[in-house]
Amino acid sequence: MARLTFDISVSLDGFVAGPDPDLEQPLGAGGEELHTWAFATETFRRQHGLEGGERGVDDDVAAESVRGIGAYLMGRRMFSGGAGGWEDDPRRDGWWGDEPPFHVPVFVLTHHARPPLELRGTTFHFVTEGFEAALDRARTAAAERDVVIAGGASVAQQGLRAGVVDGFQLHVAPTLLGGGTPLFEGVGGDEPRLEVDRVVSSPAATHLRYRVLR
Amino acid sequence: MARLTFDISVSLDGFVAGPDPDLEQPLGAGGEELHTWAFATETFRRQHGLEGGERGVDDDVAAESVRGIGAYLMGRRMFSGGAGGWEDDPRRDGWWGDEPPFHVPVFVLTHHARPPLELRGTTFHFVTEGFEAALDRARTAAAERDVVIAGGASVAQQGLRAGVVDGFQLHVAPTLLGGGTPLFEGVGGDEPRLEVDRVVSSPAATHLRYRVLR
Repeated sequence: MARLTFDISVSLDGFVAGPDPDLEQPLGAGGEELHTWAFATETFRRQHGLEGGERGVDDDVAAESVRGIGAYLMGRRMFSGGAGGWEDDPRRDGWWGDEPPFHVPVFVLTHHARPPLELRGTTFHFVTEGFEAALDRARTAAAERDVVIAGGASVAQQGLRAGVVDGFQLHVAPTLLGGGTPLFEGVGGDEPRLEVDRVVSSPAATHLRYRVLR
Repeated sequence: MARLTFDISVSLDGFVAGPDPDLEQPLGAGGEELHTWAFATETFRRQHGLEGGERGVDDDVAAESVRGIGAYLMGRRMFSGGAGGWEDDPRRDGWWGDEPPFHVPVFVLTHHARPPLELRGTTFHFVTEGFEAALDRARTAAAERDVVIAGGASVAQQGLRAGVVDGFQLHVAPTLLGGGTPLFEGVGGDEPRLEVDRVVSSPAATHLRYRVLR
């Protein structure tokens, strides 16, 4: 079976978003800073239709992290920043405009059913039956390729608690947010057991990759 | 002026001790695991009068972390595991037996005054006037050499909040404790601003060293 992993940017104090997120500032106070390393890379810029960008360690990591992926899992809040019924959600078609950067099927966990959303190169499927159901559908869509949890923290936590995550990579920004959304809330203790897989670093981020032991 | 730093072992989810610490298990559930990397090194074993031990990345880091130090600052709980008056503290002479591994003056922050405790090679001074007073005394004792916060988390936090820490190194164990004593509680937001200084890793721990920018 193909692997289930996640890649997530996090502050040195373990938050994936800063305090007080809202629609204006969906990553909370200081949260944008967690992604500075990615925004600067050639890979990220090309994915978002922009020229230029830097090569080097961060770009190598960014390029790796989009290779061999057959489907994504994503939480509702990551998809639109909203909650509740879709009719009141100003970002009901997601954050990414006409051509989202995924280019494979994306399964969005939500409590509010809706038909699939087809944008250029990416179809979003909305799954109301929970994490395991969404994972099953993503695995089927991905066939031999990997399924990646695109975020947010709560979906990563569901995967870790269910014992189905094979590994993950943290991109640790050299910043302390002092509060916000903790990546590992409700996870840990005896499980999961981890093994260091690879560590590389740049001034912008330290990339820590772990295997989950079974 | 000499530098003020700290070196601390931490879980991947940011705890320096696990849940429910007590006198039997002062590092809480799973907390011993954070120090596995250090216990295995030749440097640590020699410091504690033992033979053998491993060389390599972890040992290099351990050896570095005891060089050039003129004095330590330490919290009461790290010194004895206890709280309250000394007369009721079963570890009132510390955890380390007749010859503690410090071999320079150690300034212990406490609310309970007592005369200095002289053991073989190390004198512990008990400071009741707070963090800044203890730091002043430690700087004087250290002269040209560095002052190191030996722990615990609350003393490191006091140093960071006071803006007097020059840098720190986290030894990140590949483990999720799921709860316990958070290293960075009450620290972060606009300050301190950090810069990656050095990153090295072994299977047992990832050593992340940061400079604090002024």
